[in-house]
Amino acid sequence: MAKSKFEYVRDFEADDTCLPNCWVVVRLDGRNFHRFAEQHGFSKPNDDRALHLMNKCAQTVMEELEDIAIKSNWFRRRSSKFMTHVASQFASSYVFHWKNYFKDQPLLYPPGFDGRVVLYPSNQNLKDYLSWRQADCHINNLNNTVFWMLVQRSGLTPTQAQERLQGTLAGDKNEILFSEFSINYNNEPVMYRKGTVLIWQKVNEVVTKKIKLPKEAEEKEVEVTRTRTKIVPLHCDIIGDQFWDQYPEILSDDG
Amino acid sequence: MAKSKFEYVRDFEADDTCLPNCWVVVRLDGRNFHRFAEQHGFSKPNDDRALHLMNKCAQTVMEELEDIAIKSNWFRRRSSKFMTHVASQFASSYVFHWKNYFKDQPLLYPPGFDGRVVLYPSNQNLKDYLSWRQADCHINNLNNTVFWMLVQRSGLTPTQAQERLQGTLAGDKNEILFSEFSINYNNEPVMYRKGTVLIWQKVNEVVTKKIKLPKEAEEKEVEVTRTRTKIVPLHCDIIGDQFWDQYPEILSDDG
Amino acid sequence: MAKSKFEYVRDFEADDTCLPNCWVVVRLDGRNFHRFAEQHGFSKPNDDRALHLMNKCAQTVMEELEDIAIKSNWFRRRSSKFMTHVASQFASSYVFHWKNYFKDQPLLYPPGFDGRVVLYPSNQNLKDYLSWRQADCHINNLNNTVFWMLVQRSGLTPTQAQERLQGTLAGDKNEILFSEFSINYNNEPVMYRKGTVLIWQKVNEVVTKKIKLPKEAEEKEVEVTRTRTKIVPLHCDIIGDQFWDQYPEILSDDG
Amino acid sequence: MAKSKFEYVRDFEADDTCLPNCWVVVRLDGRNFHRFAEQHGFSKPNDDRALHLMNKCAQTVMEELEDIAIKSNWFRRRSSKFMTHVASQFASSYVFHWKNYFKDQPLLYPPGFDGRVVLYPSNQNLKDYLSWRQADCHINNLNNTVFWMLVQRSGLTPTQAQERLQGTLAGDKNEILFSEFSINYNNEPVMYRKGTVLIWQKVNEVVTKKIKLPKEAEEKEVEVTRTRTKIVPLHCDIIGDQFWDQYPEILSDDG
Repeated sequence: MAKSKFEYVRDFEADDTCLPNCWVVVRLDGRNFHRFAEQHGFSKPNDDRALHLMNKCAQTVMEELEDIAIKSNWFRRRSSKFMTHVASQFASSYVFHWKNYFKDQPLLYPPGFDGRVVLYPSNQNLKDYLSWRQADCHINNLNNTVFWMLVQRSGLTPTQAQERLQGTLAGDKNEILFSEFSINYNNEPVMYRKGTVLIWQKVNEVVTKKIKLPKEAEEKEVEVTRTRTKIVPLHCDIIGDQFWDQYPEILSDDG
Repeated sequence: MAKSKFEYVRDFEADDTCLPNCWVVVRLDGRNFHRFAEQHGFSKPNDDRALHLMNKCAQTVMEELEDIAIKSNWFRRRSSKFMTHVASQFASSYVFHWKNYFKDQPLLYPPGFDGRVVLYPSNQNLKDYLSWRQADCHINNLNNTVFWMLVQRSGLTPTQAQERLQGTLAGDKNEILFSEFSINYNNEPVMYRKGTVLIWQKVNEVVTKKIKLPKEAEEKEVEVTRTRTKIVPLHCDIIGDQFWDQYPEILSDDG
Repeated sequence: MAKSKFEYVRDFEADDTCLPNCWVVVRLDGRNFHRFAEQHGFSKPNDDRALHLMNKCAQTVMEELEDIAIKSNWFRRRSSKFMTHVASQFASSYVFHWKNYFKDQPLLYPPGFDGRVVLYPSNQNLKDYLSWRQADCHINNLNNTVFWMLVQRSGLTPTQAQERLQGTLAGDKNEILFSEFSINYNNEPVMYRKGTVLIWQKVNEVVTKKIKLPKEAEEKEVEVTRTRTKIVPLHCDIIGDQFWDQYPEILSDDG
Repeated sequence: MAKSKFEYVRDFEADDTCLPNCWVVVRLDGRNFHRFAEQHGFSKPNDDRALHLMNKCAQTVMEELEDIAIKSNWFRRRSSKFMTHVASQFASSYVFHWKNYFKDQPLLYPPGFDGRVVLYPSNQNLKDYLSWRQADCHINNLNNTVFWMLVQRSGLTPTQAQERLQGTLAGDKNEILFSEFSINYNNEPVMYRKGTVLIWQKVNEVVTKKIKLPKEAEEKEVEVTRTRTKIVPLHCDIIGDQFWDQYPEILSDDG
């Protein structure tokens, strides 16, 4: 069996190395999640179970990739490796952790995700990308909140709700929420309004350890403070400077 | 909240359209599956449960992508879409279907996969790519079969088995199998030796239907033959011409 | 002087290898040649000097690249090498050979060209690309011929000529040429209507050689037929099959 | 003649837009200039005519591209446009301006160049790229200077000179130059040692103008100071900070 005769097909693989000294963003989107949400009875406009499951998956990806990053110089910055590892790890985690968040709601079928890699040369470009995502989250959530109030509380059909909101600005939507539903949008849960940012953070943990001191017969329990790096979910504003001032290590070279 | 100010970051996304009139191959590999196999007690050299689960996942991907293909002109041939959809769908399916194949062996953690896209301009290139994969399957399986016989039956350590096989050719390995373990390699299960090819195939199914004929009082059962397109697993040789002669529709324009 | 400290910048160069087993087309366009033609008094609609100079430059590129092709495995199919070598060789040849075609018309400034590389996976794609160019040549030349007749013979201003041709089809243009200017478009020079294709062709040349035969005192002149590969300009139709039937070596593997 | 039938071939053109917010470097190299230099009797190790012609061509490119930059948003940052315009303009300028630098030495054939595009995300990357080129210039020039002294003055063959220099460091070469040829390398012309940088610079020019003042019968000559942007050749060190401190506009956003 002549293996070598076919080996030439390897040369058809294109090099997709990411330009050095750029931030590599991997962006994921659920495939057909509108339908998925309906079939699994997600509550509207936000389903806490679904949001927390998403965060858990993102965390799993970060932990797994942290692992990879240390070991293998990130696959020589190959774009395809980045996006498929992230997409597949997120997807398998979604099914794996589903039951911890959705209890007696069974998962009907395995969902798909699509990913892409985008490069950002400067810190400002990266911040602007993240600001864009958070601004988008805000706009969508405000709109969804009013839309579902109109449907759920005022009994409008989706089409009627859509028409009612046609052409309205953020101010108008806030006003509808307040005057018709006594909802102050700013009091809505911050995770809905700002989305979630996961960051690696150094935390101090107090741990109880048993140690045997010299000249003493028995082990003794002592409290030890240990510094550990941990993934922490945040729901703060990341458009202003405060977030970046508070976590300078995110953008630093050794971040 | 100025959304538009950040919108410029969209322009950093590169176009990754695949060259038209080429075969688009998406290749997947398990991440760290050596360790995964050990932790989940896969039998060596081949674990039927694992192989059938893999095939099930590949089938799910084909069904899902068939779906996509019809609807959306395949995402305008964007390479990133192809590979992330395939990788994520395969990964979520792996976890979803695990319990049907591994019964009382729980899945310990969600596995990752990596994918890549390779373009092949001609039918011959595509055939050679697939031949390369099947040749590789053969070489690996022959090697693994002898290796694990030496370990499991002759009691060699993995290192000793490795040393024993150092520099041996296919003929030598066949000989060891036959003379020491009375195994005729060609009688080993074909799925192990040739791997699995999944193809869409038209099949005729005989279905029983109840119909009510005019002028008759009661419904009557009749047998109806229905043509359906179905995914079929094959373990045949795909290096020679016979396979391609038998399934010309695979390479045809309307395949 | 620490050279090595800066060497890292080399890694920013992207790999731009062309997909194997595809036709590599390098397409050139003159920069701002409308203005260039006017400033150098090109005759309208076609200037034979300019056309023959173009053909000479293309020929020089072919001779130079033939040279490269043999020596260096075509720069490992790097797209940037292909297009810059072609564009720069064409440009320097244009200036170099100018005076042989434009005699007492001095070249006022060095012209620029832009190039691009396009890959075509199949023979049919390549033929269709070339057909597209020839069809484009025809459409442009027919239009230009009528346009300049209206301006030069009927005394219309360019704007008036433009308006007159607005919305006319090929048949209308042929009719104007015939009825108003007694021109049968099909009798126009074929180089204008079909453009020029340059191909490598084997030609037999009869050369006179002096040889000294054994047993004879003096050298004798004999005629020897020698086969040589030569670049030949053609102005034939390349859209139909005849051209490709006549020159099968163009598309053959060893062409 | 069905044009539209072939138009599909346009879709095979790949998008090669450069990542935004990166410095776009176009690097050129002469093809086979070793041979070209010999055939045209370039003096060794440096030929002033050839160097000044190179600078003139680079200047022409800058002037032409400045022009383009203003008009057309730089071809939507298409990499192929950048490199082919630069390479072709440089090449045509080389032939065009040849006779002004090489007087009675005729140009034997039109030379070729190859180009490439490299992206640098940060100012530091760009500086390091340029430092790399200048360090390379220094290393090559020091080596060439000693090599040609050994050949021209000491009568060594090229091979002997090569062997003599094998393994020598910069210090050794300086020492050979000084002790054997009484040459202090640092007194060699700075253009040879540092190469040439061309920058756009604002310069004040005093121009004589004729103006007619009100209430006066005749025109009067007055001197007017005019600010103009002009390309200036520099041969200074660009590795240290001084250059960048002196010309901050090069890296500034509106530079």
